[in-house]
Amino acid sequence: MTVEIISVGTEILLGTIVNKNAAFLAAKCAGLGLNCYYQTVVGDNSDRLKEVLKTAVKRADIVMFTGGMGSAEDDITKQTVADFCKKELHEDEQCKKRIEEYYFNRGKKPSEKKFRQAFVPQDAVIMHNRISTAPGLIMETSDAKLLLFPGDPEAVAAMFEEFAAPYISRLTPGAIETQTVKLCGVMEDEAEAKIKDLIDGQDNPTIATCVKEDEIQIRVTASGKNQKEAQKLIKPIVKELKVRFGYDIYSTEENSSLEKAVVELLKSNNLTVTCAESCTGGMLSSRIIDVPGASDIYKIGIVTYSNKAKRKFLGVKKATLQKYGAVSEQTAKEMAKGAAANYKADVAIAVTGIAGPDGGTAEKPVGLVYIGCCIMGEVTVRKFYFKGNRTQIRQASTVSALMLMRKCVLEYISKVTFGEKS
Amino acid sequence: MTVEIISVGTEILLGTIVNKNAAFLAAKCAGLGLNCYYQTVVGDNSDRLKEVLKTAVKRADIVMFTGGMGSAEDDITKQTVADFCKKELHEDEQCKKRIEEYYFNRGKKPSEKKFRQAFVPQDAVIMHNRISTAPGLIMETSDAKLLLFPGDPEAVAAMFEEFAAPYISRLTPGAIETQTVKLCGVMEDEAEAKIKDLIDGQDNPTIATCVKEDEIQIRVTASGKNQKEAQKLIKPIVKELKVRFGYDIYSTEENSSLEKAVVELLKSNNLTVTCAESCTGGMLSSRIIDVPGASDIYKIGIVTYSNKAKRKFLGVKKATLQKYGAVSEQTAKEMAKGAAANYKADVAIAVTGIAGPDGGTAEKPVGLVYIGCCIMGEVTVRKFYFKGNRTQIRQASTVSALMLMRKCVLEYISKVTFGEKS
Repeated sequence: MTVEIISVGTEILLGTIVNKNAAFLAAKCAGLGLNCYYQTVVGDNSDRLKEVLKTAVKRADIVMFTGGMGSAEDDITKQTVADFCKKELHEDEQCKKRIEEYYFNRGKKPSEKKFRQAFVPQDAVIMHNRISTAPGLIMETSDAKLLLFPGDPEAVAAMFEEFAAPYISRLTPGAIETQTVKLCGVMEDEAEAKIKDLIDGQDNPTIATCVKEDEIQIRVTASGKNQKEAQKLIKPIVKELKVRFGYDIYSTEENSSLEKAVVELLKSNNLTVTCAESCTGGMLSSRIIDVPGASDIYKIGIVTYSNKAKRKFLGVKKATLQKYGAVSEQTAKEMAKGAAANYKADVAIAVTGIAGPDGGTAEKPVGLVYIGCCIMGEVTVRKFYFKGNRTQIRQASTVSALMLMRKCVLEYISKVTFGEKS
Repeated sequence: MTVEIISVGTEILLGTIVNKNAAFLAAKCAGLGLNCYYQTVVGDNSDRLKEVLKTAVKRADIVMFTGGMGSAEDDITKQTVADFCKKELHEDEQCKKRIEEYYFNRGKKPSEKKFRQAFVPQDAVIMHNRISTAPGLIMETSDAKLLLFPGDPEAVAAMFEEFAAPYISRLTPGAIETQTVKLCGVMEDEAEAKIKDLIDGQDNPTIATCVKEDEIQIRVTASGKNQKEAQKLIKPIVKELKVRFGYDIYSTEENSSLEKAVVELLKSNNLTVTCAESCTGGMLSSRIIDVPGASDIYKIGIVTYSNKAKRKFLGVKKATLQKYGAVSEQTAKEMAKGAAANYKADVAIAVTGIAGPDGGTAEKPVGLVYIGCCIMGEVTVRKFYFKGNRTQIRQASTVSALMLMRKCVLEYISKVTFGEKS
């Protein structure tokens, strides 16, 4: 089955916002086994939307819309699609109540205009909005199924899960299941080489690698008569990937992140962590703290941007800074050791590097970063050369710090376990 | 003149990447006064790209492409467009040299395949790539001008500036100029109300407000016979906006950011800053340090996520935490004061709040955040209620902290200046 995504909104055409809704829907549709060949963006203009809609229903089995579902004058998606389907709008009681409730909870009274959102086309299935107020809609024509989502990304995600995904699953003969295997510390070509035989040999499940924010992911997608059968096909492949990549797999869950995996690893081993950051300047701490419940493992961290701060708050020796410089293996080592001691954490991670655009030399170019990880007094330091602008170098440093920390913790645990057994 | 943007790449259709290039090009085109009515995404498929291309040249004066310009098998944009224009490809010497040089600088030898990128259609104007290797192209047909960009966002930005913008300026009769006025600490409806008479009264220049990452911007766009004339039309409007918004305008430069404005303000007044972060967990420090040259004003900062850390490293009193809690005006005040004293900075900014999803109560709900700013011993604390998920609450807190810091510094400076004069 094919799907086409139409985003409605002049703000996308003006480049004021990035079209994240289209990316979200595209990924979800791919996960459900739908083929998407076109995405279109059109402004808040009824004639142009109608034109795009006409083309889409000829090309695709399912057409999804986002945006233009609110109560403003220029929100034209619902009316345009209803006209196209020759359906009248009528007020829906449940949608009306939702609008009242939403504003009541915020101590406000909705203006009369807001209730335009409660009007829905005849025969449409309503995708109720639990996040904001504009409902989504499912409509069927002889050519295609039409799914209309509002513009609010959170509402789109919630509606997709609750209404759209089950609806699409019922449409598609059989079931499609996808599992994502997330790797860390492996390069893409290295990962591909390691599973070339699997990629070449298979067509159900299909196996594909992709890079997402400096991380490598392997997606295994299978189709079967039902969900169970599809899952059964995926299982042995994921098992084989686990054998081949071992600890380089940090998660096989869709909604996981590297920082979440690291926080869970620390938590399950009763380890606390501290960060001593120079060039990343708080970015590493920020990513760890973005994980709900990070307070169990993260108590305190420090951003030591100046040499003086590195000396005073981490105990880096003046001689070390003078002899090797702030961006050196030795400084990274002393930063990690000092952070662990001063801030009494089981694990301390230190980052020092040259993020640019200035400050690089032939010997120490922009992008040179040292990351140190200290666990129970033992320090591992790694040297990296990252490409890109200042922000990109800092982001790559943060990802590598999380990866190094994970690796060191796993090694430490296996050592401890081995020690206890022997 | 109208423009249409076609993005080529199966990874966009799969939702693996977000289409940031389209947003970039759209914003640039809007800035040049081009009208954009459609954006399309199509996969790495020659037939479908040809179909989309046919439609676009009928509708628009200029068609821009991104992606599919590399040397892989599935990079089909250049060949497809060349076929459409009935142009042969030939190897370009300068492009070839660029590829050799790029790999040589990285200590590598390019594979034979990489040189496919050096082949360009007859009569095409080359937009040379100073960032990576795939060149961009400008081609003209009887229907439309075609501008082909690679997929690398940095290369797209550089090429647009160097080649595309001057080319488009030559095409458009007269000139279009835009100036963005960036506000901070003002709500969108408040800003709109303040300039309603200007918005209603004008059509050249046009004045429009928009929200971008929790900030309000006002865009003033004018067209004139030439650049100078257009700029002349913008000037009095920007002057009037300065009168009306005063210090709430943090910049009138396109490439500025709030953190950059704050860093420059501190730098020009010889003030240093430190951050004491709880719920933002390093995000505020990270944004400040993202500004090149931040080392002049930022030496050290601390992430005190636990109560114990707030006491030990910021000197927050045990009694304060017990009586008022970690998320309170009093704690924010002591955090800011303690940070300024312990880390010897002229300005200290402290953030403490409930980012969720857990930890909220009826009295202190998720989203409640206190931000304190201490300048030379004087502390200002503000209370905020932010909406959204954990990440969004942390981001909004960071933006508000930057805004509060800017406001306090400006007030401090005006007080000092006034004091000196009197």
